[in-house]
Amino acid sequence: MSKFLPFEKIGIVGAGSMGSEMALLFAEHGLTVSSFDVAGQNIDNLKKYAESAPEDVRSRISTYKDYDPFISSLGGKDTRKLFVFSIKHGSPADQVLESMDKYLTKGDIILDGGNEWYLNTERRQKELGKRGVHYIGMGVSGGYQSARRGPSMSPGGNPDAVKEVLPILEKFAAKDKKTGAPCVTAIGPGGSGHYVKMVHNGIEQGMLGIMAESWELLYKCLAIPLDEISAVYRKWAEQGELARNFLVEIGSDICGQSDEYTHSASHLLNKIQDKVVQDADDSEGTGFWTIVEAANRHVSAPTIAAAHFLRVASSDRAQRLQVVEALGQDLGAARKQQISDDEKKAFVEDLRLAVYCATLASFAQGMNLIARASDDEEWNVDLSKCIQIWREGCIIRSEYIADLLQPLYEKEPAVRNTLTLGPVADEIKRTFPALQRVVKRALEWNAHIPSISASLEYFKYCAGLHLPTQFMEAELDYFGAHSFDLKEEGPGDVKKGKHHFEWKPA
Amino acid sequence: MSKFLPFEKIGIVGAGSMGSEMALLFAEHGLTVSSFDVAGQNIDNLKKYAESAPEDVRSRISTYKDYDPFISSLGGKDTRKLFVFSIKHGSPADQVLESMDKYLTKGDIILDGGNEWYLNTERRQKELGKRGVHYIGMGVSGGYQSARRGPSMSPGGNPDAVKEVLPILEKFAAKDKKTGAPCVTAIGPGGSGHYVKMVHNGIEQGMLGIMAESWELLYKCLAIPLDEISAVYRKWAEQGELARNFLVEIGSDICGQSDEYTHSASHLLNKIQDKVVQDADDSEGTGFWTIVEAANRHVSAPTIAAAHFLRVASSDRAQRLQVVEALGQDLGAARKQQISDDEKKAFVEDLRLAVYCATLASFAQGMNLIARASDDEEWNVDLSKCIQIWREGCIIRSEYIADLLQPLYEKEPAVRNTLTLGPVADEIKRTFPALQRVVKRALEWNAHIPSISASLEYFKYCAGLHLPTQFMEAELDYFGAHSFDLKEEGPGDVKKGKHHFEWKPA
Repeated sequence: MSKFLPFEKIGIVGAGSMGSEMALLFAEHGLTVSSFDVAGQNIDNLKKYAESAPEDVRSRISTYKDYDPFISSLGGKDTRKLFVFSIKHGSPADQVLESMDKYLTKGDIILDGGNEWYLNTERRQKELGKRGVHYIGMGVSGGYQSARRGPSMSPGGNPDAVKEVLPILEKFAAKDKKTGAPCVTAIGPGGSGHYVKMVHNGIEQGMLGIMAESWELLYKCLAIPLDEISAVYRKWAEQGELARNFLVEIGSDICGQSDEYTHSASHLLNKIQDKVVQDADDSEGTGFWTIVEAANRHVSAPTIAAAHFLRVASSDRAQRLQVVEALGQDLGAARKQQISDDEKKAFVEDLRLAVYCATLASFAQGMNLIARASDDEEWNVDLSKCIQIWREGCIIRSEYIADLLQPLYEKEPAVRNTLTLGPVADEIKRTFPALQRVVKRALEWNAHIPSISASLEYFKYCAGLHLPTQFMEAELDYFGAHSFDLKEEGPGDVKKGKHHFEWKPA
Repeated sequence: MSKFLPFEKIGIVGAGSMGSEMALLFAEHGLTVSSFDVAGQNIDNLKKYAESAPEDVRSRISTYKDYDPFISSLGGKDTRKLFVFSIKHGSPADQVLESMDKYLTKGDIILDGGNEWYLNTERRQKELGKRGVHYIGMGVSGGYQSARRGPSMSPGGNPDAVKEVLPILEKFAAKDKKTGAPCVTAIGPGGSGHYVKMVHNGIEQGMLGIMAESWELLYKCLAIPLDEISAVYRKWAEQGELARNFLVEIGSDICGQSDEYTHSASHLLNKIQDKVVQDADDSEGTGFWTIVEAANRHVSAPTIAAAHFLRVASSDRAQRLQVVEALGQDLGAARKQQISDDEKKAFVEDLRLAVYCATLASFAQGMNLIARASDDEEWNVDLSKCIQIWREGCIIRSEYIADLLQPLYEKEPAVRNTLTLGPVADEIKRTFPALQRVVKRALEWNAHIPSISASLEYFKYCAGLHLPTQFMEAELDYFGAHSFDLKEEGPGDVKKGKHHFEWKPA
């Protein structure tokens, strides 16, 4: 691609919150930005928002509600163009591509920054590739605020095209605070970039479950006031195992936030309903796609699945009320505890380690899934670089965990189960007792702990010498002639056993 | 289809254990059976096996290793033919269809008794339908032994074709012991038959996890001898909540089985390795497809998922040993308890009710998935009939649960969440305390309880007035502008909230 001049203009399709923040960020970094959205309201909002930017930034942004002038501003149909998509995955993205089709030319590069299903990404790569147009599936993490300050990005697709845009992306990516290294890398070919972002969101899903459960324990069971929980989370995020853990940090902000929204005397958090609908209403796919992928590729991911099914069940509050009414009882009423200050202090410390230990489970499950997919699809994804790009600007940022994992993956790039890594095992061993204690207490207190308890069980069976599946194997052989291996034969391969017994003659 | 004569001959493709048992069963019911298999060894085995049958049955079975004579035996290419497939799902089935293509004629009916992915079923229905050939996706449950004694079947596809074969299927289906009604029904159009069978296996997967976990508690923690556990399970299956629960019944047989296989002094169960590989080696799909479907359709199914991820993790024993070595510790070593006989007795009774309560969770999750898929795909599946066909001949047979659910679904065919049904809620309420006690004890004893504890959490959040997702919703709004509803607004619909707060200005 060296025959081409570097891109100086960029066309951003979609001026929602993410797209608008990106427009300003690109303009700040010296690019001439053309922003387009079919929804005129979004363009009007962007214009208004850009007014807050310095003159030199604002002057580099132009906005469009129609394709013709938008494309002209980028040099027209026959000039090589660079686009960023910030639109909804699936058919909305397909519709935009269809509308833009006549304006595309050989050498154009489209960076799709949406959360797209990787097979859609690969379909588009194939179709557009025939015409020399490069479609790059680029995960963009960090939410709408990081989009402004510098997000974490995972571009994947044609290696030459990714290489060409990487210098631009490196400029505006989030930077690792320790090394200054940009949080973007060439993930691999095909849909690998969107895939890695999907798994990022899967790990995030697990962590969101774990954090929410920790909050219930502190607030509902220990009855610690929200401002104090804010301080607890703040301290957790300052040093140790949860150092610079993004979801702990914002958890602190949230617990400390007075109700500036409805202006009640309460905290805003107390006013918010317990419905998470983004899976059920299909506005977000990454959460359930991660479960689909873990299931399809036979990677055990119970923490992520437990957190997912909790939030799915939360979405239909009306139905939940029906169940409670049918039962005449709230089965999930967390009980307030009267315990001594010392006990409370000890429990809060256990909880901190349990959150960390369960978060390790979520990471291990996600990383094992990336490793498996990379093998299956021959993407050759570098696990250490995934950790590198998640060091800043993204939702699962967790400095301590990144410091633990990144060098291990550098040393053992071929590792396929993160739990087999010595220092990871050491961390689990060290914090597992706290996780056990928290689960026991939480059960006594009837708190909701689907994600945290699933993590405990995960470690118990992944590091288990004798699983109850011995009995399951016998039942499967009884009715299904599934066949089994004998213990005396050693662990053997992952394949059908050599022995069948007629437990009951047919 | 009334213009056609009823089928008197049937061609069975595939002479593995299931196909062979079906050959004998159809012959017993008076049909002339032609059995075909490309694997000559299977045909030889079938011939040998048929020698044990009475002369009139055996004489109605002919066997073939080549297509030409096989098709001739059914009247040739231009005669209407009835086939049953008992072959592996996916590409093996596609290959057989390709090989048979030239022998098919208008009006032929193929009953695919394999565990096929329902979208493959619908693809084949479409392709073959163009030529007037009816491909019916028919779940066949009960394992290879039921295939002989009469299986439970769920045919789905073209309504006229299903109607035509139903009388034949009714003859050799398992019969409900109470009413004599056959355990087969016309499930619905398209891939609904294979779908319902997939969910049957998903429910089974949950139950297998629950049972295996119960066994570990009895054997490893309470140190009850296997012969006594056999008696315990036998009693459980005799009356009450687990009456005629198939997996409990065979669990009793398994625990009572001496080692007639390697002829050691031990029980055979003690010799069997704890690896369940059928998901990981892709020989069976229904287990993970159920998870994929639950995720894709946003139906909460944590019991089934937890049991799945346990068995997936069990498959690679060598890797587990690596994790244990890295940790220097078996995190899942169930501890033997010294408790009084009275305590033991009380615990065993709690365990019985906990197994029942968790099994209800597995059923509810599966039935909710069928209901959702039926709505999405416009299949109009009758949930009560699903329960009816599972009354006999299948792996999830559970008389008490069938007696509970079937009349409820008859009364409320439109119910979309089984937990909202009053009598179901009553059962959960009654047995939930036992489930809680068992999970607490099992944690103290460090037993593996992924499926049982996931069921507990499931009930806690499905019947929960205030979920920790309140905090999750705030975090999602903080970084993702996800927006939320206010508590004061009432439960509302499953759609994006109306409020967003700038927790931290960008």
